[in-house]
Amino acid sequence: MAYPELSAVTKIAVVGAGTIGASWAVLFLARGYHVAVSDPDPARETFVRDFVTSVLVQRTPSPADALSRLEFSASVEAAVEGADFVQESAPERSALKRDLLARIDAVLPADRVIASSSSGLSVSGMQSSLRHPERLVLGHPFNPPHIIPLVEVIGGTRTAPEAIAWAVDFYRLIGKHPLHLKKEVPGHVANRLQAAVWREAIHLVMEGVATVAEVDEAVRFGPGLRWALMGPHLTFHLGGGAGGMASFIEHLGPAVQTWWDDLGSPILTEETRRLLIDGCLAEIGDRSAEDLRRERDRLLSQIVALVEASPIL
Amino acid sequence: MAYPELSAVTKIAVVGAGTIGASWAVLFLARGYHVAVSDPDPARETFVRDFVTSVLVQRTPSPADALSRLEFSASVEAAVEGADFVQESAPERSALKRDLLARIDAVLPADRVIASSSSGLSVSGMQSSLRHPERLVLGHPFNPPHIIPLVEVIGGTRTAPEAIAWAVDFYRLIGKHPLHLKKEVPGHVANRLQAAVWREAIHLVMEGVATVAEVDEAVRFGPGLRWALMGPHLTFHLGGGAGGMASFIEHLGPAVQTWWDDLGSPILTEETRRLLIDGCLAEIGDRSAEDLRRERDRLLSQIVALVEASPIL
Repeated sequence: MAYPELSAVTKIAVVGAGTIGASWAVLFLARGYHVAVSDPDPARETFVRDFVTSVLVQRTPSPADALSRLEFSASVEAAVEGADFVQESAPERSALKRDLLARIDAVLPADRVIASSSSGLSVSGMQSSLRHPERLVLGHPFNPPHIIPLVEVIGGTRTAPEAIAWAVDFYRLIGKHPLHLKKEVPGHVANRLQAAVWREAIHLVMEGVATVAEVDEAVRFGPGLRWALMGPHLTFHLGGGAGGMASFIEHLGPAVQTWWDDLGSPILTEETRRLLIDGCLAEIGDRSAEDLRRERDRLLSQIVALVEASPIL
Repeated sequence: MAYPELSAVTKIAVVGAGTIGASWAVLFLARGYHVAVSDPDPARETFVRDFVTSVLVQRTPSPADALSRLEFSASVEAAVEGADFVQESAPERSALKRDLLARIDAVLPADRVIASSSSGLSVSGMQSSLRHPERLVLGHPFNPPHIIPLVEVIGGTRTAPEAIAWAVDFYRLIGKHPLHLKKEVPGHVANRLQAAVWREAIHLVMEGVATVAEVDEAVRFGPGLRWALMGPHLTFHLGGGAGGMASFIEHLGPAVQTWWDDLGSPILTEETRRLLIDGCLAEIGDRSAEDLRRERDRLLSQIVALVEASPIL
């Protein structure tokens, strides 16, 4: 199947108008596309318009032009009509996603790629009942997608290599950092890494070693700074001095193994949930979520600009 | 015990002249202190002087002044003589550290604090044979200590609260971000979090989901950017939208639990070691370690300046 020339793409459908869908819409609008957003809840139109406006006002001299390219529909079929690409960002519920993808698949010409933003569902599972399973890929972003560059891309057992290649090229064209994974595993790559660090972060809170806010500080003023620049492996390679990773493993490998053996395995009980929620509320104090979100986006944009202008590799 | 007035501190002994010791020396020199470095290997003097010079040349208009405040000695007793504070950064071997700490303890007046940079040894264990165990604290930095703000501070069972308070105040005075942990656990806080993320990072490489370089990319262009700004808990609290952490757990908690259940537990076998070393070499290509280290320090300094000028909390 020949998918559209990238230069011929003009309209993108964003299916699902939650936090992720609205952020995708901002990105596509900022790149000059017509964007049709759909959500069964008509009240989401106001949310999307307000979100898009609040972000675009800070980023472009002419938000009115971008806003004129945004449509909203309660019908997924209407939004998908004439779209050159579909980015599905519905809630993370398997049955709901399958139903929605089937509806998109039923009306969208076979030569258009559909990407799912799913955090953890497998493409192989989601595509099984599609008429054209070969054009379904994962396009998993990180919140907020209009700022964080990473998109994880992978196909399922029935996805065509051309669809994967198209999605990778398209994401790269619009300034994202697509990463084509080699094997489907639950949670893909980055969410597994986040789950790993969060699991131990929760354990340390539950054990009374540090508060929610202190664990966050330990990351923000410590390893988080290196991860933003190098990731976990390169951080340790450079930590090994002239001997690199070999030297790091020789000197710290045995210690790391003892820490691994001691890591915790908390589960999200009601008690854990309570501690985490209270800990977050104590951490943010009297700051509003809206204020923090704006500040996060401002600072994240600066960090992204810095590492993209001059990546270490 | 009354420890020195912070304003009266003039000389600091840095025991152990490896990567960490040399970086501590840079920081103390840049803050105007006299610094006496000791290492049993006299060849380390050249390493330290070269390292200090190469960093200071970029940071201060008068490196000669700072260099004139640096002494080197093969004898730990000579370095510690007259010191107002000792930062021990010897290799991470228990017997060696205990011996060295006992020698420092034997000659240093009782009213001076000793901090160990140990990555994972417990203070309670290290202090057991000291004459003045109450003045030993952990002062665990992150490489490179002259740039990364975090220092984890904790006492052992026999450490005086005043010694901990003194170390916290001193580190804060010189611009570090000290974090006083509440409970001794192997690897403290940040190294456990690093171990958790690295364990899964290794697992994903071993499973063929992504290469060493790709796993690093997934972090650098994805969650690493958010960790640098917010840490793991606040990232998810803001990811939960208006509902915060409660909403995040409600929507993604069940998925996270399934990822936790699927995380890997690799061990550092010869095969793992080989894959990681080869993966790091492939990742850096023809870049020299020295070039990467310089670039890392330049970019890290910029990220630190950004988040310290305007922390999200």
